Amino acid sequence: MAVWESKRQLIKKVAVVYTPRKAGAVEMVGELSKRLDVLGVESEAFDSERVMSAGVKISADLVIILGGDGTVLKGIHSLSDHRTPILGVNFGRGGYLSELSPDELLTVLDEVLKGSFAVEEVMKLSAFVGNRKLGDIVNEVYVSSESIGKVIDFEVVQGGDTLLDGVADGVIISTPLGSTAYAMSAGGPAVDHRLEVAVVVPVCPLTRMSPLVLPASRAITIRFKVPRVHVLIDGQIREVLNAGELAISKSEQTVRFVRVKRECSFARRLKKRLR
Amino acid sequence: MAVWESKRQLIKKVAVVYTPRKAGAVEMVGELSKRLDVLGVESEAFDSERVMSAGVKISADLVIILGGDGTVLKGIHSLSDHRTPILGVNFGRGGYLSELSPDELLTVLDEVLKGSFAVEEVMKLSAFVGNRKLGDIVNEVYVSSESIGKVIDFEVVQGGDTLLDGVADGVIISTPLGSTAYAMSAGGPAVDHRLEVAVVVPVCPLTRMSPLVLPASRAITIRFKVPRVHVLIDGQIREVLNAGELAISKSEQTVRFVRVKRECSFARRLKKRLR
Amino acid sequence: MAVWESKRQLIKKVAVVYTPRKAGAVEMVGELSKRLDVLGVESEAFDSERVMSAGVKISADLVIILGGDGTVLKGIHSLSDHRTPILGVNFGRGGYLSELSPDELLTVLDEVLKGSFAVEEVMKLSAFVGNRKLGDIVNEVYVSSESIGKVIDFEVVQGGDTLLDGVADGVIISTPLGSTAYAMSAGGPAVDHRLEVAVVVPVCPLTRMSPLVLPASRAITIRFKVPRVHVLIDGQIREVLNAGELAISKSEQTVRFVRVKRECSFARRLKKRLR
Amino acid sequence: MAVWESKRQLIKKVAVVYTPRKAGAVEMVGELSKRLDVLGVESEAFDSERVMSAGVKISADLVIILGGDGTVLKGIHSLSDHRTPILGVNFGRGGYLSELSPDELLTVLDEVLKGSFAVEEVMKLSAFVGNRKLGDIVNEVYVSSESIGKVIDFEVVQGGDTLLDGVADGVIISTPLGSTAYAMSAGGPAVDHRLEVAVVVPVCPLTRMSPLVLPASRAITIRFKVPRVHVLIDGQIREVLNAGELAISKSEQTVRFVRVKRECSFARRLKKRLR
Repeated sequence: MAVWESKRQLIKKVAVVYTPRKAGAVEMVGELSKRLDVLGVESEAFDSERVMSAGVKISADLVIILGGDGTVLKGIHSLSDHRTPILGVNFGRGGYLSELSPDELLTVLDEVLKGSFAVEEVMKLSAFVGNRKLGDIVNEVYVSSESIGKVIDFEVVQGGDTLLDGVADGVIISTPLGSTAYAMSAGGPAVDHRLEVAVVVPVCPLTRMSPLVLPASRAITIRFKVPRVHVLIDGQIREVLNAGELAISKSEQTVRFVRVKRECSFARRLKKRLR
Repeated sequence: MAVWESKRQLIKKVAVVYTPRKAGAVEMVGELSKRLDVLGVESEAFDSERVMSAGVKISADLVIILGGDGTVLKGIHSLSDHRTPILGVNFGRGGYLSELSPDELLTVLDEVLKGSFAVEEVMKLSAFVGNRKLGDIVNEVYVSSESIGKVIDFEVVQGGDTLLDGVADGVIISTPLGSTAYAMSAGGPAVDHRLEVAVVVPVCPLTRMSPLVLPASRAITIRFKVPRVHVLIDGQIREVLNAGELAISKSEQTVRFVRVKRECSFARRLKKRLR
Repeated sequence: MAVWESKRQLIKKVAVVYTPRKAGAVEMVGELSKRLDVLGVESEAFDSERVMSAGVKISADLVIILGGDGTVLKGIHSLSDHRTPILGVNFGRGGYLSELSPDELLTVLDEVLKGSFAVEEVMKLSAFVGNRKLGDIVNEVYVSSESIGKVIDFEVVQGGDTLLDGVADGVIISTPLGSTAYAMSAGGPAVDHRLEVAVVVPVCPLTRMSPLVLPASRAITIRFKVPRVHVLIDGQIREVLNAGELAISKSEQTVRFVRVKRECSFARRLKKRLR
Repeated sequence: MAVWESKRQLIKKVAVVYTPRKAGAVEMVGELSKRLDVLGVESEAFDSERVMSAGVKISADLVIILGGDGTVLKGIHSLSDHRTPILGVNFGRGGYLSELSPDELLTVLDEVLKGSFAVEEVMKLSAFVGNRKLGDIVNEVYVSSESIGKVIDFEVVQGGDTLLDGVADGVIISTPLGSTAYAMSAGGPAVDHRLEVAVVVPVCPLTRMSPLVLPASRAITIRFKVPRVHVLIDGQIREVLNAGELAISKSEQTVRFVRVKRECSFARRLKKRLR
């Protein structure tokens, strides 16, 4: 995965998704729309909090996202077409999914609007309950008890083989992109996002378990032996499941990140995380 | 702590706390009350689920608890006098807090009722918000976000010194007794329960933190930099706090466990946990 | 990797490599050679300790290895042709690399000698200092100080990007096959051996580092900032290096394991390790 | 432990122990001896590398140590009287055992020489083989295989109870002071140095083990089931043992650190380590 592709397509319409919680991001919305107006580029701004709750779908040639990782994830989950390139500008703590700092945005904006940028295409996973798709996974899905501090009893199965079987607070199934996020806090490895794998990380295991790195080409099944579990996708989509299992497999869709820096984005994310 | 004391006090009244979820425990209640009746010992049975929700307070010369660790914790939190000796009989998975298996109970019962047992006195911690006591802590208190999968920003302070300062899913403050329970799942050490210490274990830390072992003789303050946190004591008592800090200190009360085995209970718990 | 292939080639010559340290293995050598003799199969036995020190190269249609993982690794490193199928029979503690227990060997031997077995081909890595090949890596290479308990200062670089930079006792670079061996003891993930990746695991890091999973398709460079390091390949090949860096890349050679069981060998190894 | 005591004793003789590997430390020796000369204080300088190998014993009213933690440890191990106060000045990477930076030394020197400083007394452990004392332990003792990358089979026993029993690269037994040093790299907790405990940390365990915190008041026995082990005390004293067990107990001697800062030294060390 993580195919790089050089774009040369003129940007006519830009959507700006911003977090209403950071004054800097809100201010930047105004500044940005003036600038886009001057340049003759159509623009529309979206409050990230409302976008997801209202189920708004965003259409544009480019989506600029002003906020932290949560805002970027909300923006990606609100795209009407998953192929739309997104450009994250960090106003948060980590900013692992952002390409630029606020200062950098204005200096590269003109170039970007001419379509002069590379696109890095990154794998997503999908979560299914039977035939019903719960959603696509940019970073990770976290399956746990619905009660804080309670454990669940579960198995991790791939290709008919039980790989883990035990009791823990929960289990994270992460993309390589998400491996430096929540999965790493729980003890998982950093995985180069050019690999087509899924990372399975038990959270606070009571019985002996280990993080796993598995091929994403075959479905991974989380079989839970409790009546109900809480499922959280990318920290954004919550659901309580009664069904006995959740299947995770490679999504047919990807995320397309605008890249204007030469440095490898995996190395950059890792450095930020270990700093 | 963990003072050993040989008892020689006749048991006239026994309370039996049992989990309604295990058929074996429910059956044992019947068997036990018949036996106690024959021996001329007064007895009363309590459903562990109802006891805590109804706020029942249990008075007896001895409390026999039939269930897993959750049941034992419910029993201890329902004692009207913390000095009442408790005897755990394991019907659960771990049974770290139980002295006996169901089979063993009936063979030692007569001796125990003559008061022929040792009592191991074990330290508890207390959690306070300002002057309000949230409760005593047998195993641990877990402070976290009220939303599953969200982090909190907090400091751990003792004696005016900030020891940890960072971002994590939450933080466990555990007694030595609880060190082999949830705290160990989160990466904490096993601590001999004869030490008067508190164990602080960050859960899924985003920033660099470490488990701590601190004297229990001085208060430990968890200062949180988020509007609200979820507090869970011994997996049983839940509360959402708005106040900015929680203070943990050594309780004036203890738990008194009936011991009929010679083997050190710390070694036994540790072996069970690492098995 | 990990291509499966069904063999139907008659076995005319068998080499038996055994550990002299286990009486059971030594006895089995006698039993096995009688049996092979009766069946008209030529056989030769090799003491695993002598084989490596003497630099003996083993040629056969099949190599049966009686011992623990160390013995299997010695056997593999002594093959004159890396394509020779090997069949491990466990007389050791872990036996992660063995297909069979001693009891099972005699029941399947006749079938195996008819060539009725599958071969699982597993990736190796290679370690280079400049143009000099130190050796092929079946499980892992461990780079450390030459003095026990001393740290080294190093960087892990791939494709021009520094991924880790810090101080630790050492660093393990493991194949997926080796991920359930030493790398897991040091905190690394279990990696499905069908993935073409290398696992990098810092050992006792002083500064903040994380295990990594990287594509094996590009060289990984360990750049050390100390005058000398100790290099240990598969626990068998030791060398002290003065050069400033070690390069690890996918080997052109593989290991070919005889498989007579249907169960996935990754699942089996993982279960053994977590037991 | 960690008793604080205010000193008011005039310093007539100062020993300066320095690392020859840091130009800054060597320069400071000259500067310092001039200054001491002017002030009428007798002084003597010791190369830390030679001091230990030559078995020199240092007598003075105060020992100032210029270097990193290794230098401080060498200085402490060379004291002829363990009650001599020591003052570490950091020229190394970590400097966990140092009170001052080079800049700070000259500003506080005059006050210190008047005896105007507090002394923090910190617990040591002792290592014994039978009746033979191997040495006192300021930070930790590391017991391992004598061969890099090989495991040992051992038990940790206290008061007749086997607490750990398994296979690992080795095991660290650390003082609270040493808990933020090597023991933390191996996954151990940070322990307030006012506690009288020993921290046991398995290094790269193959079987399931856990860090332990045990009372220092009773001996801890490491019983090894291999013919020989390598013992390393404070990274300085090396020995190969043939005997079957090593006993660790609280030393009757302590280390006395000069403190001129108000901040708690545990908080300071922890902050440095987690930075």
